Amino acid sequence: MTEFDFIRRYLMRQQSDKDVLLGIGDDAAIVRPRTGFDLCFSSDMLLAGRHFFADVAPADLAHKVLAVNISDMAAMGAQPRWALLSAALPKLDEAWLQAFCDGLFGLAGQFGITLIGGDTTKGDYVFNITIAGELPQGQALRRDAAEAGDDIWVSGRIGLAAAALNHHWQTLVLPEAVHTLCEPARLRPMPRVALGQALLTVAHAAQDISDGLAQDIGHILKASGVGAEIFADRLPTLPILRTLLPQARLYDYLLAGGDDYELVFTAPEQQRDAVLAAGRAADTPVTRIGRVFAGEGLRILEANGKEMQLTHLGFDHFG
Amino acid sequence: MTEFDFIRRYLMRQQSDKDVLLGIGDDAAIVRPRTGFDLCFSSDMLLAGRHFFADVAPADLAHKVLAVNISDMAAMGAQPRWALLSAALPKLDEAWLQAFCDGLFGLAGQFGITLIGGDTTKGDYVFNITIAGELPQGQALRRDAAEAGDDIWVSGRIGLAAAALNHHWQTLVLPEAVHTLCEPARLRPMPRVALGQALLTVAHAAQDISDGLAQDIGHILKASGVGAEIFADRLPTLPILRTLLPQARLYDYLLAGGDDYELVFTAPEQQRDAVLAAGRAADTPVTRIGRVFAGEGLRILEANGKEMQLTHLGFDHFG
Repeated sequence: MTEFDFIRRYLMRQQSDKDVLLGIGDDAAIVRPRTGFDLCFSSDMLLAGRHFFADVAPADLAHKVLAVNISDMAAMGAQPRWALLSAALPKLDEAWLQAFCDGLFGLAGQFGITLIGGDTTKGDYVFNITIAGELPQGQALRRDAAEAGDDIWVSGRIGLAAAALNHHWQTLVLPEAVHTLCEPARLRPMPRVALGQALLTVAHAAQDISDGLAQDIGHILKASGVGAEIFADRLPTLPILRTLLPQARLYDYLLAGGDDYELVFTAPEQQRDAVLAAGRAADTPVTRIGRVFAGEGLRILEANGKEMQLTHLGFDHFG
Repeated sequence: MTEFDFIRRYLMRQQSDKDVLLGIGDDAAIVRPRTGFDLCFSSDMLLAGRHFFADVAPADLAHKVLAVNISDMAAMGAQPRWALLSAALPKLDEAWLQAFCDGLFGLAGQFGITLIGGDTTKGDYVFNITIAGELPQGQALRRDAAEAGDDIWVSGRIGLAAAALNHHWQTLVLPEAVHTLCEPARLRPMPRVALGQALLTVAHAAQDISDGLAQDIGHILKASGVGAEIFADRLPTLPILRTLLPQARLYDYLLAGGDDYELVFTAPEQQRDAVLAAGRAADTPVTRIGRVFAGEGLRILEANGKEMQLTHLGFDHFG
């Protein structure tokens, strides 16, 4: 099988998107942007050994590679539309490719995303996806839009991906029933696209939680020139993790674990009902976890009001 | 230096593009497409050891990574506008990064391209660029638009990159003066953006020459359902290569060498003057090298009309 056979057989699936004028197979794809929308762009690259293990199931891998990109669209409040996949593969193994493409097109289909292009080459596994999405003109959930007095919210539950990853590394042993609940967060995160869109006219700033809650909130605070306090006991997680894990470890997972691909966002206090309604509309739990204040820095407060000391705040990609 | 310092210090340069509403630094960039234009998207990934040598000068490397993507825009007749760069780097070496970014932003500036996003991670050198460009609505130089009776044209000169590459590999020894003329084609190819745009209303099909002329013409023929004949003695190259190289080798470089990033395109016979005028307007030589016919297959004809036998037709990325 040559590169061209591979592209024809696996990547040029029939996809129906009337705004795609020319899909895979030319020097470039052509799309027609809809009037009244801005376009959002994001790229994420995943390398074997760094972002995933070479023995990962190919369908899970494809899901993850696309999900992290979709999550960036969710964090802007955008509707993901088109994706380009660049892949370095050590060989063209048909069973592997079939499973990978099933995972990829499965998730793409759920979100109405069309694969319009990319590149393939021989090499150790590397995947890069660039995603483009639409935003109603002038609307966006930007990092620099948090304001003093805003509440801080987080979607879904966090710390599950970190627990599953540590179980995988054998630095933690989860009971089987708990592992079963955590593993999907690590292998098949579901980006919060519907919530992001529902929050467009409700929230101020948003960001997805990829590097760890503390670091990711930090990006919002820095870009917005504000500070924040987080109430540690309000952080939503799987309740059993609070009893299973020593407190230091629990908060390490919750605040620095990352990889949950939930959204953290800020919204004015008078929008509390609207935020809850957006969560219901998107069928996504939302939890109020803190407050933005004028000033700087991030304070994590324990239930007794004492400030928690953090030493390790998330993932530096060159650390 | 952390990843975030690197992005801030080297990648978040002041760039002026009023259609970029939000650049590097958020979950995604936001651009506002102009009314009346379609958007073109393309991605290319380059790996150390496969597409470049680890000892390449970083400014040349950056030029090449961006140039191959710009060339895809040129081949559609599009105006490149925005780029996203994903980079895996083994370490954050400031001198290397400075030189790389000088090469990158140097070429981007020449074409009015804004770097709006990307990703950075630690790993053996991998670069992926996704580029987006604008096309007047409904116009494009597509691969599937060649028609029987069309002339086939090529821009500039070909075979120079292959000669320089073989010299680099020491499978060919070029005299110093000849090497000096060929080396820029290998290290600093200049995509034919102005020509592609000038051809939009003149040419039918176009493609850039990355994998080798024969294979790249083959893509046009297959997509268009036609055949073609090429007149070998008309292929434009550096004249001294015709005397320096044995004929088999010469035609291997000309037909299968690739990496020249010239354009091969087809246009109706009655557009010959318009093609020459487009070449002059774009300050780019254009040479008529063959003809499209109803049928299939690619015939390379020698000056005596005899058909040349080809065994090796270009670069398969998994070969």
